[in-house]
Amino acid sequence: MDTCEIKALTFDVFGTVVDWRSSIIEEGRKLGLRKHIEADWVSVADTWRRRYNPAMERVRSGERGWIKLDQLHRENLLEVLQEHHIDTLDDAEIDDFNRAWHRLTPWPDSVPGLTRLKQKFILATLSNGNVALMVNMAKYGGLPWDAILGAETARAYKPQPQAYLRTADHLGLEPRQVMMVAAHNRDLIKAGKLGFRTAFIYRPTEYGPQQKSDLEPVRKYDFVANSLLDLADKLVPED
Amino acid sequence: MDTCEIKALTFDVFGTVVDWRSSIIEEGRKLGLRKHIEADWVSVADTWRRRYNPAMERVRSGERGWIKLDQLHRENLLEVLQEHHIDTLDDAEIDDFNRAWHRLTPWPDSVPGLTRLKQKFILATLSNGNVALMVNMAKYGGLPWDAILGAETARAYKPQPQAYLRTADHLGLEPRQVMMVAAHNRDLIKAGKLGFRTAFIYRPTEYGPQQKSDLEPVRKYDFVANSLLDLADKLVPED
Repeated sequence: MDTCEIKALTFDVFGTVVDWRSSIIEEGRKLGLRKHIEADWVSVADTWRRRYNPAMERVRSGERGWIKLDQLHRENLLEVLQEHHIDTLDDAEIDDFNRAWHRLTPWPDSVPGLTRLKQKFILATLSNGNVALMVNMAKYGGLPWDAILGAETARAYKPQPQAYLRTADHLGLEPRQVMMVAAHNRDLIKAGKLGFRTAFIYRPTEYGPQQKSDLEPVRKYDFVANSLLDLADKLVPED
Repeated sequence: MDTCEIKALTFDVFGTVVDWRSSIIEEGRKLGLRKHIEADWVSVADTWRRRYNPAMERVRSGERGWIKLDQLHRENLLEVLQEHHIDTLDDAEIDDFNRAWHRLTPWPDSVPGLTRLKQKFILATLSNGNVALMVNMAKYGGLPWDAILGAETARAYKPQPQAYLRTADHLGLEPRQVMMVAAHNRDLIKAGKLGFRTAFIYRPTEYGPQQKSDLEPVRKYDFVANSLLDLADKLVPED
């Protein structure tokens, strides 16, 4: 396809750019060592993430008003800790563990891939993470975003159309001038329906070794790539 | 003062970080050469800028709904062109001249100063410019922002309190953890009243050689600096 019209790439971040699962497990293990807590930190990470979509759904449906992901994460964390019988953390420790989402490690190809893509395109987040979470994560991992956009600036959680459309509008671009980059079919199908270009990134271990969803693209997207470096090879060929 | 508490610096951009006046004059001159238009481009730049605040005031007052600065700039430009009897530009040429605000040149100290400040602080725009304008300007001039925030993401034009307070909230910070950096007393006085730290930057030729306002800080600010490199010397001393 002709990529001349594409001015900006917008990125899903959790799973597509950063390895949230390994990072949260590791933060849990370190916390456990520090506080002498025996717990199944893999299960903590997975149950914490499992509560992510239902929590946002209550905002999307209008059941509750706009609320940042940091706050949803914290509410979910309290439930997860209770479920795992972890009851020796004080408020500051819970806050700090909640901010583990601000310290997620990029996949190895993310920083070099984004750095090359940035030569040609505007790179913006289009994540359900709030601005502070994304800014702190970028500082932590060296992610070279041009703009931090998405749910909080659009005041809508993906896959609500406003999350995509307001982000394109903030960039001063038509949807067809923007390509959504994600490891998740649902995200790309929605973006594509709204007129965005689409790029699928394989992240077959995002949910661990037994991952069952999003192992393959289920539609025809504009690009399919094994990594962000592979996407850069396709979009910004080196001389 | 103790700077440990400061996590982010928020910047006024027009005049503080970029030399809008020389840039607009230069773009006008080039347009004049290309289109064989004789005009006083210095006066075009100055009258265009003079219409900036009154246009925003109609949004601030609620006389009209939210509208991006790009659109206000364009409406103002049509009036300025008429005033200067420039009537040979087509819509695309007017659009392109309007986008001169996306191509403003940084003051010579801005990029090296910001680059050093970025080692220690989150750097965010807190400008009345819209997101696309700021993103394109950053690409054009190499401004290393961590986040593009301000009027459009806050949906309020400075000096409305929401412009400052929502920006701090987007960064997940209390006002006292944020320092407003500006060459304009009005901006700093308002930010200071809301609890922000304040840094005044001398830009004595922003409005040209006959500048009369903002030549000196009129209050006691936390920092006063001759340039962004000077501010970096004060906040991020080199070994």
